[in-house]
Amino acid sequence: MTTIIKNGTIVTADLTYKADVKIEGGRITEIGPDLTGGTVLDATGCYVMPGGIDPHVHLEMPFMGTYSADDFESGTRAALAGGTTMVVDFCLPEPGQSLLDALQRWDNKATRANCDYSFHMAVTWWGEQVFNEMKTVVQEKGINSFKHFMAYKGALMVNDDEMFASFSRCAELGAIPFVHAENGDIVAQMQEKLMAEGNVGPEAHAYSRPPSVEGEATNRAIIIADMAGAPLYVVHTSCEQAHEAIRRARQNGMRVYGEPLIQHLILDEGEYANADWDHAARRVMSPPFRNRQHQDSLWAGLASGSLQCVATDHCAFTTEQKRFGLGDFRKIPNGTGGLEDRMPLLWTHGVATGRLTMNEFVAVTSTNIAKILNIYPKKGAILVGSDADIVVWDPQLTKKISATSQQSAIDYNVFEGQKVKGLPRFTLSRGLVSIEEATVETQEGHGRFVARAPNPAVSRALSTWKELVAPRRVERSGIPASGV
Amino acid sequence: MTTIIKNGTIVTADLTYKADVKIEGGRITEIGPDLTGGTVLDATGCYVMPGGIDPHVHLEMPFMGTYSADDFESGTRAALAGGTTMVVDFCLPEPGQSLLDALQRWDNKATRANCDYSFHMAVTWWGEQVFNEMKTVVQEKGINSFKHFMAYKGALMVNDDEMFASFSRCAELGAIPFVHAENGDIVAQMQEKLMAEGNVGPEAHAYSRPPSVEGEATNRAIIIADMAGAPLYVVHTSCEQAHEAIRRARQNGMRVYGEPLIQHLILDEGEYANADWDHAARRVMSPPFRNRQHQDSLWAGLASGSLQCVATDHCAFTTEQKRFGLGDFRKIPNGTGGLEDRMPLLWTHGVATGRLTMNEFVAVTSTNIAKILNIYPKKGAILVGSDADIVVWDPQLTKKISATSQQSAIDYNVFEGQKVKGLPRFTLSRGLVSIEEATVETQEGHGRFVARAPNPAVSRALSTWKELVAPRRVERSGIPASGV
Amino acid sequence: MTTIIKNGTIVTADLTYKADVKIEGGRITEIGPDLTGGTVLDATGCYVMPGGIDPHVHLEMPFMGTYSADDFESGTRAALAGGTTMVVDFCLPEPGQSLLDALQRWDNKATRANCDYSFHMAVTWWGEQVFNEMKTVVQEKGINSFKHFMAYKGALMVNDDEMFASFSRCAELGAIPFVHAENGDIVAQMQEKLMAEGNVGPEAHAYSRPPSVEGEATNRAIIIADMAGAPLYVVHTSCEQAHEAIRRARQNGMRVYGEPLIQHLILDEGEYANADWDHAARRVMSPPFRNRQHQDSLWAGLASGSLQCVATDHCAFTTEQKRFGLGDFRKIPNGTGGLEDRMPLLWTHGVATGRLTMNEFVAVTSTNIAKILNIYPKKGAILVGSDADIVVWDPQLTKKISATSQQSAIDYNVFEGQKVKGLPRFTLSRGLVSIEEATVETQEGHGRFVARAPNPAVSRALSTWKELVAPRRVERSGIPASGV
Amino acid sequence: MTTIIKNGTIVTADLTYKADVKIEGGRITEIGPDLTGGTVLDATGCYVMPGGIDPHVHLEMPFMGTYSADDFESGTRAALAGGTTMVVDFCLPEPGQSLLDALQRWDNKATRANCDYSFHMAVTWWGEQVFNEMKTVVQEKGINSFKHFMAYKGALMVNDDEMFASFSRCAELGAIPFVHAENGDIVAQMQEKLMAEGNVGPEAHAYSRPPSVEGEATNRAIIIADMAGAPLYVVHTSCEQAHEAIRRARQNGMRVYGEPLIQHLILDEGEYANADWDHAARRVMSPPFRNRQHQDSLWAGLASGSLQCVATDHCAFTTEQKRFGLGDFRKIPNGTGGLEDRMPLLWTHGVATGRLTMNEFVAVTSTNIAKILNIYPKKGAILVGSDADIVVWDPQLTKKISATSQQSAIDYNVFEGQKVKGLPRFTLSRGLVSIEEATVETQEGHGRFVARAPNPAVSRALSTWKELVAPRRVERSGIPASGV
Repeated sequence: MTTIIKNGTIVTADLTYKADVKIEGGRITEIGPDLTGGTVLDATGCYVMPGGIDPHVHLEMPFMGTYSADDFESGTRAALAGGTTMVVDFCLPEPGQSLLDALQRWDNKATRANCDYSFHMAVTWWGEQVFNEMKTVVQEKGINSFKHFMAYKGALMVNDDEMFASFSRCAELGAIPFVHAENGDIVAQMQEKLMAEGNVGPEAHAYSRPPSVEGEATNRAIIIADMAGAPLYVVHTSCEQAHEAIRRARQNGMRVYGEPLIQHLILDEGEYANADWDHAARRVMSPPFRNRQHQDSLWAGLASGSLQCVATDHCAFTTEQKRFGLGDFRKIPNGTGGLEDRMPLLWTHGVATGRLTMNEFVAVTSTNIAKILNIYPKKGAILVGSDADIVVWDPQLTKKISATSQQSAIDYNVFEGQKVKGLPRFTLSRGLVSIEEATVETQEGHGRFVARAPNPAVSRALSTWKELVAPRRVERSGIPASGV
Repeated sequence: MTTIIKNGTIVTADLTYKADVKIEGGRITEIGPDLTGGTVLDATGCYVMPGGIDPHVHLEMPFMGTYSADDFESGTRAALAGGTTMVVDFCLPEPGQSLLDALQRWDNKATRANCDYSFHMAVTWWGEQVFNEMKTVVQEKGINSFKHFMAYKGALMVNDDEMFASFSRCAELGAIPFVHAENGDIVAQMQEKLMAEGNVGPEAHAYSRPPSVEGEATNRAIIIADMAGAPLYVVHTSCEQAHEAIRRARQNGMRVYGEPLIQHLILDEGEYANADWDHAARRVMSPPFRNRQHQDSLWAGLASGSLQCVATDHCAFTTEQKRFGLGDFRKIPNGTGGLEDRMPLLWTHGVATGRLTMNEFVAVTSTNIAKILNIYPKKGAILVGSDADIVVWDPQLTKKISATSQQSAIDYNVFEGQKVKGLPRFTLSRGLVSIEEATVETQEGHGRFVARAPNPAVSRALSTWKELVAPRRVERSGIPASGV
Repeated sequence: MTTIIKNGTIVTADLTYKADVKIEGGRITEIGPDLTGGTVLDATGCYVMPGGIDPHVHLEMPFMGTYSADDFESGTRAALAGGTTMVVDFCLPEPGQSLLDALQRWDNKATRANCDYSFHMAVTWWGEQVFNEMKTVVQEKGINSFKHFMAYKGALMVNDDEMFASFSRCAELGAIPFVHAENGDIVAQMQEKLMAEGNVGPEAHAYSRPPSVEGEATNRAIIIADMAGAPLYVVHTSCEQAHEAIRRARQNGMRVYGEPLIQHLILDEGEYANADWDHAARRVMSPPFRNRQHQDSLWAGLASGSLQCVATDHCAFTTEQKRFGLGDFRKIPNGTGGLEDRMPLLWTHGVATGRLTMNEFVAVTSTNIAKILNIYPKKGAILVGSDADIVVWDPQLTKKISATSQQSAIDYNVFEGQKVKGLPRFTLSRGLVSIEEATVETQEGHGRFVARAPNPAVSRALSTWKELVAPRRVERSGIPASGV
Repeated sequence: MTTIIKNGTIVTADLTYKADVKIEGGRITEIGPDLTGGTVLDATGCYVMPGGIDPHVHLEMPFMGTYSADDFESGTRAALAGGTTMVVDFCLPEPGQSLLDALQRWDNKATRANCDYSFHMAVTWWGEQVFNEMKTVVQEKGINSFKHFMAYKGALMVNDDEMFASFSRCAELGAIPFVHAENGDIVAQMQEKLMAEGNVGPEAHAYSRPPSVEGEATNRAIIIADMAGAPLYVVHTSCEQAHEAIRRARQNGMRVYGEPLIQHLILDEGEYANADWDHAARRVMSPPFRNRQHQDSLWAGLASGSLQCVATDHCAFTTEQKRFGLGDFRKIPNGTGGLEDRMPLLWTHGVATGRLTMNEFVAVTSTNIAKILNIYPKKGAILVGSDADIVVWDPQLTKKISATSQQSAIDYNVFEGQKVKGLPRFTLSRGLVSIEEATVETQEGHGRFVARAPNPAVSRALSTWKELVAPRRVERSGIPASGV
């Protein structure tokens, strides 16, 4: 079975050129002019790009006895509809639970995926078992990234001690720590204070976790990573304060990455002031939306390279689920959708405005994270031998975003009414045409787990450097014989 | 009993002018030309300045069953010999101990003081009792500052939760939180790692607490203070990273103060590489000495006003005591002397080089801290009505610093051999001539406790501002009747 | 003739205390409780503060064959009405004109002043004559500050060469250079470009001089001053970019001062989008108004000490004069009023909100500039011996700002309609009650020139430091005998 | 004629993989395993990388009636010996000279080149002719970059006006401005001052152009480029101050690039203190060497992406030529060699230490500049269709750098005695094996001019953005009928 993408312009993170692409067995087997010999997908007027990779999603995430509404089927369907061909979910062990047991559970859920996927393993508690199982996870399970929550006190949160221990273990294993960076202690105290003052609505969610609290935690995680000798990936960087900490680290040569979400790039805190409780509650996520100034900071970071990846933190809860938090904002489940809209919105607000080049668009939606996760060029590339995870992007297609026509299982869309220009004409998952404009042809269970090897080049370089500058004992002549 | 300081040039934080000073009953009663009528102190060729205030000393500090070697007698004698006329010590309750009980103990120790003194109260644990006693401490005991240790895990350290609670309480009471800013979790982990690698010497002390660990904690304390609505005073700011965090806070309008120590301004990390164990161990303090680049940062901070006060953290241990840490750097008692040398060294390296004006010298050694502690102009000023805590500074006097001739009880001096130019001709403690060049005439027990009222102007302004920008509830039309 | 200000609270840059003030012969002769014996001014409920000093005004400034509308009479009347008791104008020699001749002209104009005044001398061209006359100006004419325009190309602007030469001369003479920091070359090019594109309205004035152009020039002036060994005062710092340059300089120990205007603290660029041409044109000044983000930066600078003085750049043109620029924004005379409103507005937006303490208010309206200009404590202080330039500030008085009731000669007020709370009950100029609430009792010609000596402490310190770090010749053994 | 590079590991800016490379007709025609059928170059144990591109050289540069010692023959021979396969020289019109005439002269000189080359065109004066010829240069001569000197007053220097005009023209033409960023006015003044003080030796060269002077000019050029709507490339970024300006620009989304030289990364200012005049004079270049702190800044910039390219500014003068400046440092010809040593030194100090990954090494020595100059993937890539400019890098080869064995025509080497590990086994210029370890097989005249098209993606994006945010006229109702 051969497919040919014809007459398009290939756009990768560093190249733009006209060529056809031949796909066989789910992989790209030839790139060149005038290819023939199989099913033809017409890419005239289109850009042929690596399919998007969303490094940050939560599908069918357990929550208070229920689950986030989009599972691996609907979630990956939404992803494909928006040009994203791979998602990375977070395996979340319960306190005391074996990492391997948790992973088994996630493996089970993901069998329904329409596109390829991988997992970050979360370190939600610490102990010898975790220490030991991290090795298995890396060396046998194909996972090279470990997530740490600095927020969600009493639940997922780990403290500085645990982070240092886990980051050090990551450094040994050639894995990369991820962090959700908000100071959970302060957030918890702020939440209590706000509740006590009668600030119980969704806007109080935003009040309880201002930019400074995110900036603080980002800075702290960076220092801990530096001391542990590990690189660091900061998820959902939403504000200048966190971005500043990342820039400051990078300008000192540290290997730190930042990930803005499409939500934080486009939406602002004004949403929480909406007089409609549902409207506001549906936008409750952590970190909350910020203002224009923060958005400008994030956009500049994408262009200048101080931020690397645009993600969604897709974690969709229905309005009904959101209403658990009526009268107590702390109980509003955190999360919004975004998987289907990430790439069209970023194109519209980024490429069409000139804030990003097309190549940068590919870099921040796909290639950069493939490199960081050490799966490049299997993913994130249009190269012979790469997986045929491809989006054929039609810059003339338009739509108005609406919950009524979306793939996601939830009953609203936080981008409702926004117009986008630039959409997939085709999305291919390992060669399978899963989307053809508005037509969904996804195949449940088609997706496979993508194993990721440890020790990418950056980790190796960092280890070499840390070894070189490690503390050296001072040779002493004059040591007194005894203390007293 | 009247004393007249004649023929000198008065130098304060903002004025330089020729005038005599009349002292009666321990206070300044007249300032003007040609005063007569009492014992005359000849200040010809000298600067008549407010006596120094050292906001950071530990005298007779309990430590592993013994005490730091300088008590309130020898410590304040050393202070006066160097032109410092007031010290502020730290009352350190043991875990679970009543603040008031601890204070009683400190009151007892201080009865021997040769000059006036005050206490910061340390918050070393948290609970309702501490919360309640803080009010008593502020409103009845004349203490408006509370110290928090972010380091010394398992001993004095408090965590973010406790800091937020305590800082919030400070804000309510019009008190100011102080912090020792080093990430105690990371330091503890680094200590273990270094010991495990055989890095047991004093240099490992410095390796275990690099600038980034101090910068991190400084930044964290600042954010917590900002969230709690309190100003903040960061003790022993030793490095650019901490200074940067302070500057960044200040440029956002936060009320944050930084205090370099004279040691960090003058000495560098090279001391720990000394082949003589005793030499290195005697310099063990937290934070450790840094390099030239950090020193430049601190000096610039004093000139530009981003750092406010020069202190000593005077906590003198004998060589014998230092040797508790032979074979395990973690057991070397932390601390060095400095009380006698602070002002001559700062003059020599600061005023004589042109890095600071004389007025800035007075500001950073005396006036600024008097304002921050809300005891200005009782202290820190040459004004009618001010306490006659005065140093008559002779810019031509020189000496070579040496343990053999110092007032401190210990057997060495970390500044041994340094030459200073600029020394007290007279030091007066509330009018009492306590030092006359090399002659010590201090009077044990002459010193009195200086009570400090809460709610200085900066605290009041900050409260007003925080009230103005406090979270506001959104008025909602559309709140669903029930959750589900 | 004796005046007693009774029952007030004295507020200075560093003190707040209850005391009466006795004034004789235009000076303060006694401060203390229960003073008696002369005309009594009741200060009950009021703050007795040093009168404001506005370091930046242009009265009766020559412009295209006419003059700015407020002369030394109406201008100083407005000043006093708002609590300002001293103004510093700029003597502007024409190209090629002798500095001394220009000064003569300014001396003549100022004879009508109602309050004390001084002049900055502008260096508008360069040559041996200027070099020589600068010495006379400093040593004989009582002027220790020289203004340099980096904008107004073809008129007042001087280039880098000339600035370096002039700044070096300032360093030798112990004077301080001032700069108007905007890149005049770029502004001129932008103006042409905008005109060519048909952007001829007042809003184009703002487009032609964006923040980056001011930031650039500020940074350049700072580096030139540093190379020349001089301190630097940057007038009308209006934006974060300029403020950032100043902060960066200060954090490297440079002696640089910044001066926001009350206009830039309160008003924003939205004014230029007003559909009424007159409204927009009346707000045309250089630099133009900025946005909220820049305002926040300036306010934080005042609180943290990276900016020192609040001024007005008062240069009032009537609407008729503004209309010279109909059809060509380049011809709209630059300048707005502000002298009468500076202190009430700063109090209302600064002290009442908690952004500034009362002491900081005094510092930034009066004391800081008095120190920088080396006239402290003659001015800027409430001390025995100081000039009785005093404002008795009633924090309960309110008014709505309006052109109809103002002292200024122009027909509008850029702050029209703004409500202020906090106004002078009395303003005294060297003891003369010139304002008593709404009643104006100024006395034309009462004002005198204030001579200012060179070599303030900061200049001396800087010279010492620069000498210490000056380039040193390398001693060479191996110098070849000849070149070839 | 077919060549096969066998058994190597291909290393590009984003990939590392084992494959053979087939070369035919000077281009890469196949990449894959087990290629056969031509001359085999054994790359066992080696990395097969894109040949280096040095974007900054001056070969046979006219100077005071003579020429820099390395011409296009010896210079490109040195380049190839060190793994560099393309150089970009600067065409320098004399004041008033036609750009096209100057280009003719450079074309003539370059005919002897052993490897491919291109030219930046310098804008050394301004006028309508230059404005017009820039279009020809871009559209007919294959040059898309224009160099501007902010230093060398009275010779190559252009002022702000001219830069704005030229940058604007670049923006129109889709070209990119380059700048040599030092404030030439200040340098000239400093030079005079130093000479007057008897500071005539080579060390005075460094004193006359400190980091702040470079930082200032860098910042200024950035602002001018931003106003003109052009991207910017800053050559020989040598210090933190310049790097800071670049970072600050990038964090605001500006398209600015920085280029450290290998000299500034490795050597420091201590060289100028050498007692041997020749030693010091041979190191005279602009900017001069800096200290370790600046080096750290530059290395971090390469790792984090705030600096993009490592160059040499190769401009070799013999000791005899250097001695023109005996007794007057201003006459020492500026420049050092480096072409042969750039890549081995960067590998040794960068890759071997872990500061850079191998991929980053390729990026900063080759790929990044190919992208910036819009010649990627013709150059800077190992792709089918790319020019076969390839270096086969043997990480085990070592040598000690020495003038006695170098290709350059001069009699010394500023890196004399430095040991490098990592050298070319083969260097191929468009398929021609020019270097085989120590054996030089270059072919004079083999090199060809590389034409570069305007309007790379970044330029197009920037234009789009600038258009979007361009000043908009305010629609006005109330415009007065006439001015007066």
